[in-house]
Amino acid sequence: MTFQEQLKADIALIEPALERSLSGESGAGYDRIFEAAKYSALAGGKRLRPVIVLAFCRLCGGDAGNALPFACALEMIHTYSLIHDDLPCMDNDDLRRGRPTSHKVFGEAMAVLAGDGLLTRAFETAAESRLPAETVLRCVRLLARAAGMNGMIGGQVLDMESEHQKIPLDKLRLLQSLKTGCLIRAACELGCTAAGSEDEHTLAKARAYGEALGLAFQIQDDILDIEGDTAMLGKSTGKDEKSEKSTFPSLLGLEECRALVQSLTKDAADAVSTLGDSAFLTELAYSLVGRAN
Amino acid sequence: MTFQEQLKADIALIEPALERSLSGESGAGYDRIFEAAKYSALAGGKRLRPVIVLAFCRLCGGDAGNALPFACALEMIHTYSLIHDDLPCMDNDDLRRGRPTSHKVFGEAMAVLAGDGLLTRAFETAAESRLPAETVLRCVRLLARAAGMNGMIGGQVLDMESEHQKIPLDKLRLLQSLKTGCLIRAACELGCTAAGSEDEHTLAKARAYGEALGLAFQIQDDILDIEGDTAMLGKSTGKDEKSEKSTFPSLLGLEECRALVQSLTKDAADAVSTLGDSAFLTELAYSLVGRAN
Repeated sequence: MTFQEQLKADIALIEPALERSLSGESGAGYDRIFEAAKYSALAGGKRLRPVIVLAFCRLCGGDAGNALPFACALEMIHTYSLIHDDLPCMDNDDLRRGRPTSHKVFGEAMAVLAGDGLLTRAFETAAESRLPAETVLRCVRLLARAAGMNGMIGGQVLDMESEHQKIPLDKLRLLQSLKTGCLIRAACELGCTAAGSEDEHTLAKARAYGEALGLAFQIQDDILDIEGDTAMLGKSTGKDEKSEKSTFPSLLGLEECRALVQSLTKDAADAVSTLGDSAFLTELAYSLVGRAN
Repeated sequence: MTFQEQLKADIALIEPALERSLSGESGAGYDRIFEAAKYSALAGGKRLRPVIVLAFCRLCGGDAGNALPFACALEMIHTYSLIHDDLPCMDNDDLRRGRPTSHKVFGEAMAVLAGDGLLTRAFETAAESRLPAETVLRCVRLLARAAGMNGMIGGQVLDMESEHQKIPLDKLRLLQSLKTGCLIRAACELGCTAAGSEDEHTLAKARAYGEALGLAFQIQDDILDIEGDTAMLGKSTGKDEKSEKSTFPSLLGLEECRALVQSLTKDAADAVSTLGDSAFLTELAYSLVGRAN
């Protein structure tokens, strides 16, 4: 299978599984919460995180289907974080994945609850995996730590508290490592763990891949916020400048950022090069360099 | 030990455990999220749900200490739901447990994130229990289902969508069974499950206790919203009338509500009367009748 064929096959596994996990029509008058959850979770998107989960599971010799509940859980957590980030009291964004944001369509209260619902359903979905209980629990802990106050939420707080000021590069790296890095590193570890791998060497390499890829991805995101096109991106551009956020380009300049994305992508590829058939993960990393959305 | 002594001993177990679960100072600039989480979680409150968890664990012959992570998780979920319910886009409340609400103190964005952080930390805390993995997973699933879109969140949606209109009694019962009932029933089941009990008869009785107690509790809450005193309650009163919510008193009248609270409390006590030493749970139920806060 070529990289593109495998990617397509993975997404064809992930999207119906996500939809199944979010089907729960009640017939009892609260169906709109499922509608709101699905509106955001099934709005397309690159599915980067769940694809990474499946890829690491295969790399470690596991059946990708076994990793699917964790892949879906991670994507639900990512989606909830976007809904809450877009709220008027946070980034106040109107556009996401080319569509009006959740609170624009469903109202603020329902958007808060849809985010809450996705986060809760993520843990339910993960905990319903049929893998051995020890493995499932390990995955639940990975998810909770990555998404929590010492992970993604901590990064979001740092981000909020860094608006309208210039922050040093090391603080920006910490912020991004928490805000976007944690979930991407968790994707790598979840794949390995779902495959039953507890080998510390493999997990360290997986984390290193996630660390480098996550940072490359974020720098590319910053570049696209300056150079990208709203229609291609499906979200507003120029946001960082407007909110006076420190970004990698604002601290390092565009040229150095482009070079950094290249070298981090190579770091990611190097990290997994000794772990068996890493061709897919290598191509995945390179496919994100120079992406337009 | 008398009922009051046991209650005090339980709360003396729960509160430090909650505080430990929410200590995570980063030194990295995002400490305020922990401050906000603790502000709401350690603001007093009756601790009804975690106390029920410990009591059912003891009733089933377990060591209450083993149930502590699940008791704390449930209280964190309850607390997050209060923070999000109080937001300006939801109930827009200024007062909770006698103190300004989270968004009044920390701002809306931080209140959203503190709620998210508590919900995530709840699952982390539960998943870190040292009990057998199968038992822990069962508890994680119980928590997620009770708190999720077919549980508490669904009830919150029904509640929102029922404002400014008169709804029939059966819809109000469903709403309350989801919004407050689910977590209270989960408290009962979590206690039994943490004790290792998988006996369906016991679980059914535990659920029946939670069902009756949860409804009695909610009706009493509605009564207090009319007759209670803001200073005693620590939260605003007269809210239901202001938002034109259907409540048990608005549909049934105060007299019938008082009688219902009595008979439901008896139902709760009856449900556990054959399950061993149920004195504590019986007294707990009766202590809620006629409470002033």
